[in-house]
Amino acid sequence: MRFTILTLFPEMIEQGLSVSILGRAREKGFISFDVRNIRDYTTERHGHVDDAPYGGGAGMLMQADPILRCYRAVTEERGRAPRVVYVTPQGKQFTQADAKMFAEEEELLILCGHYEGVDERALQLLSAEPYSIGDYVLTGGELPAMVMVDAISRMAPGVLSNQESGEIESFEGNLLEYPQYTRPEVYEGLRVPSVLLSGDHKKVAQWRREQALLRTRERRPDLFSKVELTKADCKFLREQAAKEAEKNEDRPLYF
Amino acid sequence: MRFTILTLFPEMIEQGLSVSILGRAREKGFISFDVRNIRDYTTERHGHVDDAPYGGGAGMLMQADPILRCYRAVTEERGRAPRVVYVTPQGKQFTQADAKMFAEEEELLILCGHYEGVDERALQLLSAEPYSIGDYVLTGGELPAMVMVDAISRMAPGVLSNQESGEIESFEGNLLEYPQYTRPEVYEGLRVPSVLLSGDHKKVAQWRREQALLRTRERRPDLFSKVELTKADCKFLREQAAKEAEKNEDRPLYF
Repeated sequence: MRFTILTLFPEMIEQGLSVSILGRAREKGFISFDVRNIRDYTTERHGHVDDAPYGGGAGMLMQADPILRCYRAVTEERGRAPRVVYVTPQGKQFTQADAKMFAEEEELLILCGHYEGVDERALQLLSAEPYSIGDYVLTGGELPAMVMVDAISRMAPGVLSNQESGEIESFEGNLLEYPQYTRPEVYEGLRVPSVLLSGDHKKVAQWRREQALLRTRERRPDLFSKVELTKADCKFLREQAAKEAEKNEDRPLYF
Repeated sequence: MRFTILTLFPEMIEQGLSVSILGRAREKGFISFDVRNIRDYTTERHGHVDDAPYGGGAGMLMQADPILRCYRAVTEERGRAPRVVYVTPQGKQFTQADAKMFAEEEELLILCGHYEGVDERALQLLSAEPYSIGDYVLTGGELPAMVMVDAISRMAPGVLSNQESGEIESFEGNLLEYPQYTRPEVYEGLRVPSVLLSGDHKKVAQWRREQALLRTRERRPDLFSKVELTKADCKFLREQAAKEAEKNEDRPLYF
C-alpha cells in the first residue's frame, strides 16, 4: 500500500515514519511513502502558498493552486486518481473501522493542512474526505497524518505478524481492555490477582471480561452504545451496581 | 512548561518535536523536554524490559520495574512528583479541555506504552492518569504523546502569538468551523461565496454561523449535545429541515 502525503513539512513526516513496525514494513516493501512538499508546486515568485481569508478573520489560509498542481502531478504519474483524505478538526472522527476500510486501498493520498486551513475549493476539486483524529487543536496536519498512517498500515496485508494481529482483536469488541500483569508476582507489595495464576482458563476469561466491563463503565461509558452485552455481562453489571448502592447506604447521612 | 517523556523510542520523540511552532517555542524557552529511555533503567542483564502476561494472551507487557526506576530518577532530580499521564487506547478521551487543564502544570510526565501494554502495578504506583487520543490502535504511545504535547503546548503561556491564540477560539464554541476561502475570487470556475466579498460584517458572521451549523449537523451531530444554540440557530435549522423535507416530497414516489 502506498501513502502519498502532501505537506508543507515533509521532513517531519519522513522522520516519524522510519521507526518501529512502520520502519520494518517499509523495508519489507509492504508499505511505501511518497512525501511531497506543496511549496515545490507554487508558481508564486516568492514561493508563497498562503493568503488572508475572504470575509476577514485571523490567520492565513493555504491557497488552492499549489495543492491542485501537486495533486495533478501525482495523478498524472499514477495514471489514476487515488482516494484523498484531508486531516482537519472539521472532519468526521477517524476510528479503527476507518483504518480497516482505508487499508483496502492500493494508495491513499493524505493532504496535511497548516495555518488556519485550506481554501475550500481545493478540497472540493480533490473530492477530499475530511477526517479528524480527535477533538483538540494541533499545529498542523502532519501528526494526525502520521497517526492515520500508523493505524491504517497495521491493518494492511503483511504488515503485522499473525501474533501481532491477534493483539488487535481485543479492541474490536468495543470494550476497553482489562488490566494486565507480568513478572514478578509481587512487586513493591502489590500482588498479581490470584485468578491469573490459577491456570483456570475459564475463570481467567471471566475475570478479564468483568474487568473490561468495569473499566469501560468508569472511563468510557459512551462505548456501551456499541457493545453487545451478554446475559452474564448484564447480570454482573446489575450485581455490581447493587453492591455499590449498598455501600453508599452504609455511609452515614451526615457525612 | 516541561514535558518529561518516558519511552522505549526516544529518537522518535526527539525528531518530531523540533519543527514548526513547537520548535520555535522550545528555542524561546517557553517549553522544554526531558526524554528518557526506559531501557536505560533496567537491571536485567540482557536489557530486557518486557515479559509475557500472567493468565496468558498474545504479546509482551512492559515490566513495572524499569518504569519505576526511571520515574524515581526523575522525581529525585526534581525534588517533587510531577503529574503523570499514560497514553493508551484504554484511557479517557483526550480533548481540548484537557489540553487547557494540563497547560497549567509546571511539568507533565508522559509514559508511552509499547508492545501489548504495561504492567498495571506500574500505573498504580505512578498514579498515572490514562488518556486516549482516539478510538484506533497504534504501534505505541509515541505518536499519541506527541499529539498531546502539541495540543497542550499551544495552550501554555507564551507559546502562541495573540493572533494565533485567536484562531483557536473558533473551536471552543463546539461547532465545526465554517468553510474558508482565499484568493483568487474565481478558481477553476469556482467562485468565492459572494457574501464574503460584500464587506457586510454582520452578514458574513451570520453566513459563517449557518455554515458551521450545517457542517456540524452533517459530520459531527454528536457535538450538538455540547453546543449552546441561540434562537436564531434553532430557527435556521428548523427552516433548513423544512426545506429539505419539501425537496423530498417533490420527488415522484415511484422514483
